Amino acid sequence: MSPIKVPPVVLTGDRTTGPLHLGHYVGSLKSRLTLQENHRQYLLLADAQALTDNADDPGRVARNVIEVSLDYLAVGLDPEKSVICVQSHLPALAELTILYMNYVTVSRLERNPTVKQEIGQRGFQRDIPAGFLCYPVAQAADITAFKAELVPVGEDQLPMIEQSNEIVRRINRQAGREVLPEAQALVSSVGRLPGTDGRSKMSKSAGNAVPLSASPQEIRSAVHAMFTDPAHLRMTDPGSVEGNVVFTYLDAFDENRDELEELKAHYRRGGLGDVVLKRRLDARLQALLAPIRDRRADFAKRPDFVMDLVRAGTERAAALTQETLDEVRAALGLFRFNRG
Amino acid sequence: MSPIKVPPVVLTGDRTTGPLHLGHYVGSLKSRLTLQENHRQYLLLADAQALTDNADDPGRVARNVIEVSLDYLAVGLDPEKSVICVQSHLPALAELTILYMNYVTVSRLERNPTVKQEIGQRGFQRDIPAGFLCYPVAQAADITAFKAELVPVGEDQLPMIEQSNEIVRRINRQAGREVLPEAQALVSSVGRLPGTDGRSKMSKSAGNAVPLSASPQEIRSAVHAMFTDPAHLRMTDPGSVEGNVVFTYLDAFDENRDELEELKAHYRRGGLGDVVLKRRLDARLQALLAPIRDRRADFAKRPDFVMDLVRAGTERAAALTQETLDEVRAALGLFRFNRG
Repeated sequence: MSPIKVPPVVLTGDRTTGPLHLGHYVGSLKSRLTLQENHRQYLLLADAQALTDNADDPGRVARNVIEVSLDYLAVGLDPEKSVICVQSHLPALAELTILYMNYVTVSRLERNPTVKQEIGQRGFQRDIPAGFLCYPVAQAADITAFKAELVPVGEDQLPMIEQSNEIVRRINRQAGREVLPEAQALVSSVGRLPGTDGRSKMSKSAGNAVPLSASPQEIRSAVHAMFTDPAHLRMTDPGSVEGNVVFTYLDAFDENRDELEELKAHYRRGGLGDVVLKRRLDARLQALLAPIRDRRADFAKRPDFVMDLVRAGTERAAALTQETLDEVRAALGLFRFNRG
Repeated sequence: MSPIKVPPVVLTGDRTTGPLHLGHYVGSLKSRLTLQENHRQYLLLADAQALTDNADDPGRVARNVIEVSLDYLAVGLDPEKSVICVQSHLPALAELTILYMNYVTVSRLERNPTVKQEIGQRGFQRDIPAGFLCYPVAQAADITAFKAELVPVGEDQLPMIEQSNEIVRRINRQAGREVLPEAQALVSSVGRLPGTDGRSKMSKSAGNAVPLSASPQEIRSAVHAMFTDPAHLRMTDPGSVEGNVVFTYLDAFDENRDELEELKAHYRRGGLGDVVLKRRLDARLQALLAPIRDRRADFAKRPDFVMDLVRAGTERAAALTQETLDEVRAALGLFRFNRG
């Protein structure tokens, strides 16, 4: 037992393909606010990974580096506690990826369930870019370069952690000692927030997302348009809570659990109108997003200040990840120039 | 017409899996000695590529970085004229590889004839490492990072140049301008030197190679053991020149063409013994290799000096390749921090 306990390292982040939205808040940002209090947390702006399926629109990926940074700062992620860094500016990640690719077979990558599923979602079919097939290796480079001990993921991302740990074991076996730690998945207990249209995934492109920067009017419109129970035609009819998007959102954002349970019971037996529910949800979302929107607007007025924060974080991360690369190379006995 | 003509850039190099041998001398080193006189020549010690099929023996790859460097210096490659650099110490190459992997499909890589053939040779079958499948992309990164205009290759490597140029065109199309030049293959007119046993490829592992550092006795033994014409049993018998390993070597190393043609004619009609031929070849090889062996031994006594030369070359190459990476990123509109 060492007397001083070093807080564990958490690696998390986002692909920079668009500003973040309520789904990100519920699924990850909220828990990151907690994690940063007693972990060494690294937030990776994953622009290199975003390119694996946005190669024909690199400008979009670049523009959203600052958007996601603004979202981080707006929700209260604190650069003093959470290091924000840009993936494409950490050369050790690319070098580790290339190295690890020698220790993973093509058929192993093709069997990765997450990759398989996403190949379908993105409509790549047969012609997957090599970068897309290999992105689990790049993720392993990310995770190991930071020596992350905990990686927050959804259930569907568990195979990525398994792939990373496989590479860790392979490298450690080759090195004959434990140069890299295995990572643990920190699986979110929160279900994924559906889009405002009730579809399974909230996304900007589907037009069913409420961005963190949404104006009061945008929030109101989004709530107004939400599906409830299509069979609940008259206020006096009994209504269904399950699959009712408004209740799903109230479950995610209403902290008064007792009142919420009463409302559900009332709705089920009939006599509670959708308007009451929507007003309640609107109030909750307005209260949540107002300070986030204000802070975001403040930071957005100072882009140089924000980019300096990100640059400083990236420099810290560059040093750390380079150190890991050097360790891995030395452990494998790869070539290096003598020092001095 | 510009008044000052900049010499074209040549990129070439070797995988660092073992010391170089006579096959390398005939196939590439000799022409590099000519090229360095009127080209900007970069010699890449391809240790990262060597790992793609030597992942279980990284130490071998590392140890041979200095061996190949010694071979270069021994044959007369001049660090003032040919920049010697270590692939694994040029981070821009890994970064360009990762970037280009987004612009090449897996099925395109699987169709690469060179990769297909080498998969068979190396016995990978189904379980190819991802790094091996993607090594044509890494080669494209090498070629383009140096903005190489000429790349010396054997016939069998032509698909690699084609793959590289495909990537160049894809990047230029994405960028909307010609940020990268296409490379031209400089196909060697010299056939591949067979092993001393007559097998198609000279290689250390097959035990049929004469290393550039071979001792006089090793050269003598190798020549002595060479196959001639198995049907040429008595000196007076007519002998065959085609497929006769000693004549193949004489073709490669004997500069007195007239005498050589006379010998061939004599051998064909009968009356010329193998011993005479072998003595002649031995003399030619001893004369060729003696100064190379001596210079190699001299340099080998000063490993720090040699490594300083390679380090200086690597630093020059690192700056050049980083510049190309920055240009490509800017042309694609990828994220960068504002300067200052």
